[in-house]
Amino acid sequence: MAEGESALRAQADLVRRLKQEKASQEEIAEQVAKLLEMKATICPEDGKHKFVLKTPKGTRDYSPKQMAIRERVFSIIINCFKRHGAETIDTPVFELKETLTGKYGEDSKLIYDLKDQGGELLSLRYDLTVPFARYLAMNKITNIKRYHIAKVYRRDNPAMTRGRYREFYQCDFDIAGQYDAMIPDAECLKIVHEILSALQIGDFRIKVNDRRILDGMFAVCGVPDSKFRTICSTVDKLDKMSWEDVKNEMVSEKGLSPEIADNIGGYVKLHGGLSQIEQLLHDPKLMQNKQAMEGLGEMKLLFEYLALFGISDQVSFDLSLARGLDYYTGVIYEAVLLQQQNDHTEESVGVGSVAGGGRYDGLVGMFDPKGRKVPCVGVSIGIERIFSIMEQKVEASEEKIRTTETQVLVASAQKKLLEERLKLVSELWDSGIKAEMLYKKNPKLLNQLQYCEETGIPLVAILGEQELKDGVVKLRDVATREEVDICRGKLVEEIKRRTCCHP
Amino acid sequence: MAEGESALRAQADLVRRLKQEKASQEEIAEQVAKLLEMKATICPEDGKHKFVLKTPKGTRDYSPKQMAIRERVFSIIINCFKRHGAETIDTPVFELKETLTGKYGEDSKLIYDLKDQGGELLSLRYDLTVPFARYLAMNKITNIKRYHIAKVYRRDNPAMTRGRYREFYQCDFDIAGQYDAMIPDAECLKIVHEILSALQIGDFRIKVNDRRILDGMFAVCGVPDSKFRTICSTVDKLDKMSWEDVKNEMVSEKGLSPEIADNIGGYVKLHGGLSQIEQLLHDPKLMQNKQAMEGLGEMKLLFEYLALFGISDQVSFDLSLARGLDYYTGVIYEAVLLQQQNDHTEESVGVGSVAGGGRYDGLVGMFDPKGRKVPCVGVSIGIERIFSIMEQKVEASEEKIRTTETQVLVASAQKKLLEERLKLVSELWDSGIKAEMLYKKNPKLLNQLQYCEETGIPLVAILGEQELKDGVVKLRDVATREEVDICRGKLVEEIKRRTCCHP
Repeated sequence: MAEGESALRAQADLVRRLKQEKASQEEIAEQVAKLLEMKATICPEDGKHKFVLKTPKGTRDYSPKQMAIRERVFSIIINCFKRHGAETIDTPVFELKETLTGKYGEDSKLIYDLKDQGGELLSLRYDLTVPFARYLAMNKITNIKRYHIAKVYRRDNPAMTRGRYREFYQCDFDIAGQYDAMIPDAECLKIVHEILSALQIGDFRIKVNDRRILDGMFAVCGVPDSKFRTICSTVDKLDKMSWEDVKNEMVSEKGLSPEIADNIGGYVKLHGGLSQIEQLLHDPKLMQNKQAMEGLGEMKLLFEYLALFGISDQVSFDLSLARGLDYYTGVIYEAVLLQQQNDHTEESVGVGSVAGGGRYDGLVGMFDPKGRKVPCVGVSIGIERIFSIMEQKVEASEEKIRTTETQVLVASAQKKLLEERLKLVSELWDSGIKAEMLYKKNPKLLNQLQYCEETGIPLVAILGEQELKDGVVKLRDVATREEVDICRGKLVEEIKRRTCCHP
Repeated sequence: MAEGESALRAQADLVRRLKQEKASQEEIAEQVAKLLEMKATICPEDGKHKFVLKTPKGTRDYSPKQMAIRERVFSIIINCFKRHGAETIDTPVFELKETLTGKYGEDSKLIYDLKDQGGELLSLRYDLTVPFARYLAMNKITNIKRYHIAKVYRRDNPAMTRGRYREFYQCDFDIAGQYDAMIPDAECLKIVHEILSALQIGDFRIKVNDRRILDGMFAVCGVPDSKFRTICSTVDKLDKMSWEDVKNEMVSEKGLSPEIADNIGGYVKLHGGLSQIEQLLHDPKLMQNKQAMEGLGEMKLLFEYLALFGISDQVSFDLSLARGLDYYTGVIYEAVLLQQQNDHTEESVGVGSVAGGGRYDGLVGMFDPKGRKVPCVGVSIGIERIFSIMEQKVEASEEKIRTTETQVLVASAQKKLLEERLKLVSELWDSGIKAEMLYKKNPKLLNQLQYCEETGIPLVAILGEQELKDGVVKLRDVATREEVDICRGKLVEEIKRRTCCHP
């Protein structure tokens, strides 16, 4: 209400100003009308509470058309996950509050809690990774390759036009188990590459780094151990802020000396492929740090595997990649879409992350009563942004998206044939044909044909007195308008033959 | 803690009793050990809170095997919905609290509210029907045929062994729009029939009634208007309680006279088909009630349509069916599974409802600012009970359920072939083959073969020095153990040929 009242006041101010400025009568009248409308909303005359017809802030419904696009995207992603031999699991939408506690650092304030209605304290899941780790620990599973596609919840400031919601899908693929170095990690990157290629949403680059390299770099630059994670968060802002601003945050907010910040600056600007890794492996300062050397050694191995997978061209080792979450312990990665500049000589610029992940070897141990660790590596596809892009693509292409798969409409050319239509449509359903009929006793043929045009139904099976007498059905092709009499006993076969290439 | 303390005390009592009874030293030692363990759990020495590793009450995870069964059931149901030309939509898991208010009668106490963290007051959805009605009103949609499969939430007392959870799936199919009487209603029943038949979970019966017939019957029996809904709830208990108990509730709790209750008793024992409807159409008392006559007239029409659909044998007009929800306005139905008695002369008995629904012509109007009505009829499949039955069926049949679809494992017979395996598996992925490899540098062939046996992978592509030299791959059939050398360039084709009948 306070918001409404201050809006009311602002409107009133505006009206006054408009008067002072001797604005036209029309303008004043328009503003007054708006004001009255707003007043009616806030204080309805019948004194009853005005019902607000909307979905909660940061959420949305999916229309049939959006669902058709969503299912197309999911099917590409699920096919890829299955191609890599993944199983799937599901977990409840809420967890015990304490299951989520202490896993997300500062972002914990974005967790949705359920009201205490007696019983357990519950929260909506914030991601699929923590419930996965809880699932592994609870069932004492030490190795599994699973995918999980489900909605997660964050009380963030939504930016819905850019695909940022409070309720949104995550598509996660994770490999848990004690395996030889970088083999599952390389597969995760291969999966990101396969999915982004299959979706055909433009060029992309996958940035890769390793928490061990970052920590080693911080150490040799002179950052105190206690500040590793917070400096990591600052480095993570390099994709949105200039180095000057990042340095400023390190010095003024995080208390680093300008020299230490400059040391970091020297490293985080580096990116490249195998040769960049080789160079750092011989960096005199980094060579003194065991962790960094371990991370770089495995990074080299990773790039060798990526070359065997034929995807190293799209992967860039990038020392500025840090990622926000606390639980990563090894390799980390993030895929960004590149937007081609109009001027083709310019380098492409990233328009946002569409996938990310990394290795988290300690998370399952946080749930195990005896602290037993299960090493994990995984990737999460940022599907909402991809939905937005796909929707825009469909709009632009003027492609007509069908929201049903109906093969044939059972229609009648004359009145009083409802019973005959019911019998025929039932026969078709029982034979596995996707069929519809209009729910009218006596629909006009034109309306029936129009329904097919609107919904993309390719065939019409038309019944009339003559057809019934002859034991045939008139089968009409909606696109060509060709009609042909088909013997009733051959109808199912003919519909199947004609629609075999339809979904 | 109180629970823990009284358990501690009980344990202490037991130890004392054991001593008195001069039990063996071993028994006492065992009890003392248990006692200490319990004490450690309740008051851990480090003073930290003991972490509980579980899902919230009334919820569960789905394992990969359960997911495989769940997807099989969903696929049957979705196929049926699509065969009938339905589109699909999705809505958020939570709604504004006021959207759910006043829709569920007494059951509103079972709604999960979210904590007030500033902003809007939210509740988890209780069913899919109210969000559907809200969606229609919000988007001013006057006709649509849609399905929606999603989880809903009820703070009920869970009975998980019988498939009753606090988080559970609903599979809803609804037809909204102003159409000719009973045509969409009949299609809903046809859908229930198709789905229950396709699931092969045993014989079933669909009970049908109409709120108008019920109300008319109450009126002619002498029930005051104000008690229609509450007497309706009592009648609804007839599937779980005897007539005597139901009558007792009507008289002692709901304040009907025994005579009025007996009048109702005369009607609610009636069930049958068309002839039963005809008989009631000539019932001297009911004939005086316009509503009842309207309902019975349309019930007759419904049965005529059901006969055309060939399903009237499984449908029973049953005056005892009332259904709990307030919003139904016309036809109502419920499908129950029949359990064959050992003695085949006995009549089959219902083991519980697996689908239900009805007509609700007023619900959308409750959301429309101008009260515009959109007539709706729909059905909800009670999928959790069906999952339970399917799981039991799978257990009993000893069928081995695969949780992945992998067609081939890329294996090696010798050491040092990791790179070659990575190259081959990547080639296969890129050709659309579902392939896996073990994440080990040098896995033993036996372990690789065992992995196939365990997970049901039908083929193994084996690489060795000799095969690499010859440009071939040894393709092994896991079931028959037959091996044959396949030219590398023909491998994809051969795998596709051999696994075309696998999923």
